Amino acid sequence: MKIGFIGLGIMGRPMALNLKAAGHDLLVPERKSLTPELRAAATVHPDAAAVAAGSEVVITMVPDTPDVAAVLFGPRGVAEGLKKGTLVIDMSSISPTATRDFAARIEAAGCQWLDAPVSGGEVGAKAGSLTIMVGGSAGAFARAKPLFEVMGKNITHVGEAAGAGQVCKVANQIIVALNIQAVAEALTFAKKAGADPAAVRQALMGGFASSRILEVHAERMLNRTFAPGFRIRLHQKDLNLALGSAREMGMALPNTAIAQQMFSAVTAQGGADLDHSALVKAIEALAGLAP
Amino acid sequence: MKIGFIGLGIMGRPMALNLKAAGHDLLVPERKSLTPELRAAATVHPDAAAVAAGSEVVITMVPDTPDVAAVLFGPRGVAEGLKKGTLVIDMSSISPTATRDFAARIEAAGCQWLDAPVSGGEVGAKAGSLTIMVGGSAGAFARAKPLFEVMGKNITHVGEAAGAGQVCKVANQIIVALNIQAVAEALTFAKKAGADPAAVRQALMGGFASSRILEVHAERMLNRTFAPGFRIRLHQKDLNLALGSAREMGMALPNTAIAQQMFSAVTAQGGADLDHSALVKAIEALAGLAP
Repeated sequence: MKIGFIGLGIMGRPMALNLKAAGHDLLVPERKSLTPELRAAATVHPDAAAVAAGSEVVITMVPDTPDVAAVLFGPRGVAEGLKKGTLVIDMSSISPTATRDFAARIEAAGCQWLDAPVSGGEVGAKAGSLTIMVGGSAGAFARAKPLFEVMGKNITHVGEAAGAGQVCKVANQIIVALNIQAVAEALTFAKKAGADPAAVRQALMGGFASSRILEVHAERMLNRTFAPGFRIRLHQKDLNLALGSAREMGMALPNTAIAQQMFSAVTAQGGADLDHSALVKAIEALAGLAP
Repeated sequence: MKIGFIGLGIMGRPMALNLKAAGHDLLVPERKSLTPELRAAATVHPDAAAVAAGSEVVITMVPDTPDVAAVLFGPRGVAEGLKKGTLVIDMSSISPTATRDFAARIEAAGCQWLDAPVSGGEVGAKAGSLTIMVGGSAGAFARAKPLFEVMGKNITHVGEAAGAGQVCKVANQIIVALNIQAVAEALTFAKKAGADPAAVRQALMGGFASSRILEVHAERMLNRTFAPGFRIRLHQKDLNLALGSAREMGMALPNTAIAQQMFSAVTAQGGADLDHSALVKAIEALAGLAP
């Protein structure tokens, strides 16, 4: 299949190369940053419009909502080149409400839309083992599924409404942030009370307090290994989507709001590029414990 | 072994009967509420002091900190009857700081102390599969271990300091409450945004958002099955221990404080005896969703 791929960063590059390795034709827009490996694997076109004109499926994988808007609807963007019937899949993690708008404009041009954000990071992108959360019509999902199966493992069609994939990704990021804060408050409480946090973690594994975060991130907190992993900077972007969407919809997310403030407190200490488990530093500061 | 058992409620009764079934002698204080089964299984003494006088080990399993204080140090309480060398094990879930004081007074009388709160509920108490978190000296722990193995499965000696078991139990209750709120905020966000919360939960299982709470309590939220389980009333008592100890020690637990308020909001709606997963009702109210 002819696949246009726009956004060839840390995540997009291995995802695109996995599609190429699975036998698909890769079309990419000219960028100075294109690696020799990508230039060899893909046909390079002058811009996103030209990429879209030659593609059956266009995938976007860029940092944030304004980047998706620019790539799709900016000058010489995807929308200028799209042929009727093309499937556009946005795999970025962006605003669920903006996504609905983007989908409506793509569908008004006679094309199909899917939002399909991922989790699993660079490791999952390279291994083709990403979790992919998909919103959009069943027909579009069926068409895209063989491509998703090249890039990921745990693939869920969350709902037929555009944006359902993004809503699911935001829900994921809410739970991960709050489970990190749960473990941070509990282990800091134990430390402050003079107990051994490692022994406490061990005692809690396997019970109702158990979680993937207690397994993985609690260990990072105990060992003080805060190299990312997933950067606080990026988790703050995702919680911003959660809180912004919540405000637009008219609802409160009290613990999510607090977690965002705790990430900001770590950022204030210069920790924006630490792993998100470093949220514990903000809780330790609230306990008067030395960093 | 001669075991005095004080506090024969929903939890204490099956724990005591399991000790009897394992071949131990059971001594209990007179109470009108003693079941015929217990009267048959135990030697009934007039009060806690008399129970303590005849026991090698005294176990207490009562609702809250003042109950432990009364049973141990009130008129005709355990302390009045204790012989030197007796091991006192408090298996109630109470204040870690008060526990240190109780331990010091018991040890000053020439006796040994363990705090050994449990999790696993009535089901775990009956099955002898409780999780037991123990604070106190290694010697006392070794002496009690065969008894713990009759009552529980996952038994951890958290630390040598009195109160370490209670600190661990509080840490457990913090994580459970905050993981419940994490799932409640995420699923309510998804619902408000028009996505199917059940599909979202399914997509998140197995990833970094996965937890025992996402497995068990999210399902209760989706199915609206809020029969306890573990009552909000009791979880509020435990978070009160967390927040009270935190204040005594001089530290802040921001998300724990919010979770306590959310439980209070459900209590305000008449939900104190619902399962703690019903915290989601408070989050739904914050989203303007009908109950």
